[in-house]
Amino acid sequence: MDRSEILLSFLKDYRDHYLPSVSLDLVIFGFHEGQMKVLLIRFKGSQDWLLPGGRVRKDEDLNEAAYRSLRERTGLEKLFLQQFQTFGKVDRLTHFSWEETLTKMGLKEPLESLGVDIASFWSRDISVGYYALVEYTKVNPTPDIMSDECQWWDIDQVPQLLFDHNDMIRLALKTLRRQLSYQPIGYNLLPEEFTMSELQSLYETILGRKLDRRNFYKQIMNYDVLERLEKRPTIPASKAPYLYRFKKERYEQLLNEEDLSVG
Amino acid sequence: MDRSEILLSFLKDYRDHYLPSVSLDLVIFGFHEGQMKVLLIRFKGSQDWLLPGGRVRKDEDLNEAAYRSLRERTGLEKLFLQQFQTFGKVDRLTHFSWEETLTKMGLKEPLESLGVDIASFWSRDISVGYYALVEYTKVNPTPDIMSDECQWWDIDQVPQLLFDHNDMIRLALKTLRRQLSYQPIGYNLLPEEFTMSELQSLYETILGRKLDRRNFYKQIMNYDVLERLEKRPTIPASKAPYLYRFKKERYEQLLNEEDLSVG
Repeated sequence: MDRSEILLSFLKDYRDHYLPSVSLDLVIFGFHEGQMKVLLIRFKGSQDWLLPGGRVRKDEDLNEAAYRSLRERTGLEKLFLQQFQTFGKVDRLTHFSWEETLTKMGLKEPLESLGVDIASFWSRDISVGYYALVEYTKVNPTPDIMSDECQWWDIDQVPQLLFDHNDMIRLALKTLRRQLSYQPIGYNLLPEEFTMSELQSLYETILGRKLDRRNFYKQIMNYDVLERLEKRPTIPASKAPYLYRFKKERYEQLLNEEDLSVG
Repeated sequence: MDRSEILLSFLKDYRDHYLPSVSLDLVIFGFHEGQMKVLLIRFKGSQDWLLPGGRVRKDEDLNEAAYRSLRERTGLEKLFLQQFQTFGKVDRLTHFSWEETLTKMGLKEPLESLGVDIASFWSRDISVGYYALVEYTKVNPTPDIMSDECQWWDIDQVPQLLFDHNDMIRLALKTLRRQLSYQPIGYNLLPEEFTMSELQSLYETILGRKLDRRNFYKQIMNYDVLERLEKRPTIPASKAPYLYRFKKERYEQLLNEEDLSVG
């Protein structure tokens, strides 16, 4: 099949097997060399970047659709995925022509040939926003059928994206920051073993400000979610920092609990 | 128009002017005499209770639809409304027959007469869940076109509801509790002037546990969101508690801020 036929077949699949009016978008965060990163895709035949996303099959749960899309873009399973907001402004997708965009991607048939009501097909989508925390070094960034590239961007270098995707990143980050006030973070963003400094650096990067070393240590130890390891990196023992790892069961317990810090 | 004609006209409006596959549900919390309450509706011709909700018009924002539904059930404007989760399990609405339910409500025409694909019409809905905090005494509970009753229930007396609505209440409450760890609460749930004990009682009711009086006072004062009033209830002055009210602008500022309590 040539590209046009592939795209047409894909659109027919959407028409027949996926829910109308519903989509999902993924803000996939990674952390590398002290930098927060986000995974973006670029539409074929265009310079437009946007968040990876997908639609929901009629026979799958909404959350399954999100995990499936995440797996298809990163190659990873068993990830931390969190809904943060559902976006439903009437004008989310205006000033954007799917006909034009699909033509640039290589579609040679008019959308009418799909036999859908073109005025309503893809004209209005509610999008369920998820953020994911993934280990940067383990991700295999994989474009989807409509994109040429899939790659990591530094969070403060993200360009003007399509639709409301800059707002989505901003809101996902705000939700992630709030999460820090009632749950520990880091299980998926850091390597399996890390120093207290590396964990603090991650928090500082997410929060966008420096933290007091002693207060940070106290608060993290309060969660009782870290295991200190005997092993240290190979430098003079007196100066070597301890390595830590997360106690997985305890971490997951805290993720599901109401961590009440009032009173 | 008789009841059947009214229902049919309403369903045609849904078919023509509302988004398919998308609905919304409202967990409307009130607080009265030390009890948390939730507003429920009962379907016409049935003993089934459920959460009030609605659908999204093609020409309105998702959030506007939520505010509209809230206004129609309570008579109130300018309310605190917060998305907490979007529900999208494939089997949310199975074991439930709309044909049967609508017939019990008084519909005399078969759904086929609407000219929709009955297998897909209302067979699968993603539902965007919102919770609202409202002042109990100001609400005028108003049933919708499909319900006979709309009334307050004590939160611990809520019966088995339709669909996943018990899960929705549980999750809304969990989100509300988490909110307490980074934002003050009470602006819509309490009367305009209240004592510190009344505010503490509200927190204790939401959290489901007793709080230490001095710690609570310190944490609330830390938000700098209360104004202490000179006026006191009419009992011996030495024993009269102070009255407080929320500083509205400061309260709203905190609702929009990332209230960072780490480090």
